[in-house]
Amino acid sequence: MPPDAPVDHAAAFAAADIDEFERLIRIRRDVRHFERTPIPEELLARAIDAAQRAPSVGLSQPWRFVRVDDPDRRATIAASFRRANATALAGYDGEDAAIYASLKLAGLDDAPVQLAVFTDEATETGRGLGRQTMPETLGYSTVAAVQNLWLMARALGLGVGWVSILDPAAVAATLDVPSSWSLTAYLCIGYPRLTDDTPELERRGWETRRAAHIEQR
Amino acid sequence: MPPDAPVDHAAAFAAADIDEFERLIRIRRDVRHFERTPIPEELLARAIDAAQRAPSVGLSQPWRFVRVDDPDRRATIAASFRRANATALAGYDGEDAAIYASLKLAGLDDAPVQLAVFTDEATETGRGLGRQTMPETLGYSTVAAVQNLWLMARALGLGVGWVSILDPAAVAATLDVPSSWSLTAYLCIGYPRLTDDTPELERRGWETRRAAHIEQR
Repeated sequence: MPPDAPVDHAAAFAAADIDEFERLIRIRRDVRHFERTPIPEELLARAIDAAQRAPSVGLSQPWRFVRVDDPDRRATIAASFRRANATALAGYDGEDAAIYASLKLAGLDDAPVQLAVFTDEATETGRGLGRQTMPETLGYSTVAAVQNLWLMARALGLGVGWVSILDPAAVAATLDVPSSWSLTAYLCIGYPRLTDDTPELERRGWETRRAAHIEQR
Repeated sequence: MPPDAPVDHAAAFAAADIDEFERLIRIRRDVRHFERTPIPEELLARAIDAAQRAPSVGLSQPWRFVRVDDPDRRATIAASFRRANATALAGYDGEDAAIYASLKLAGLDDAPVQLAVFTDEATETGRGLGRQTMPETLGYSTVAAVQNLWLMARALGLGVGWVSILDPAAVAATLDVPSSWSLTAYLCIGYPRLTDDTPELERRGWETRRAAHIEQR
């Protein structure tokens, strides 16, 4: 579908389409094992287009994508991950520490595409509408964009892993971005190398998925 | 699809399915005009199930849903919106103020379902994994859940509007939730009453959708 192709706003989604969308939501995974094979640029563009169509507070569209290709910058970011991960490991004891140490928590060494996603905290776009009492909705808009990208990438056969074990200020400095940009997400993208479809944290006994918590008032 | 129905993890998505998913992303709107018709409970349950399957940092699943049915609590929240909206309007001048005043920014008076979505900042689930250097990823997980819910609701023919022009602490107090829960999103849900599929902010000349901003390093 070309970026500006017209779409039918009124047509209902068929039951089978809804089931496939539900399957997409269920099988989306945080991927930490990647093939090194490059991915077609058109797939990446399509995933970014899905991000660009996310909701944003006041139509502020505050997300800024930085593709990280330079090997030196990648190495600096991977080192930041290793430092933050070692610090986190030191905070766990006994069995928790043993499990934590066994987890693979980032695909930074193999993923062919790395995308830092920032929020421009100083954007004038949207003129502040909707974010005066809850300014955090600016960053939330960027998260919605990431979630769109993640789902579309999975639909296209790609895997995405969100690396949050990083010093966000150090990543911003490494990537030399404007001072008003704050790091929201650091994404690894590529073809997934999967041996099991259960989330790694469930498989290793760290945590399990639970039922929805719903209260009424 | 029953909540625990097995899904095929390996099957590729057909080109037509990906196109329909892309259409879903493109036609999702922030809805502020609702029919008062009740919505079927099974549709709401399916949208919440999609939320429950969102990614979360360390599998923390920190989202907590509070369905707001009590008329007095709804009235208190609608009053909070009107106060915050009046304050916001007072911050704009001239043409901006005229446009702002003409915008319908919430469907609180008509939406049959109102869902406050909180983040439990004190959850032990996930044991802190992945959020030591970026603790904001806990709230980001809740946003990913909202985005899943939003897309699934739209696929099912429902509309969702995210109201952020609220005092989050006042909403938490009105709903009498645990002190560790912070408001992430307040959602209006129902059948949409649409007269135009262009976002209201674009239609009224407040803001336009832009091309993706991508840099390379």
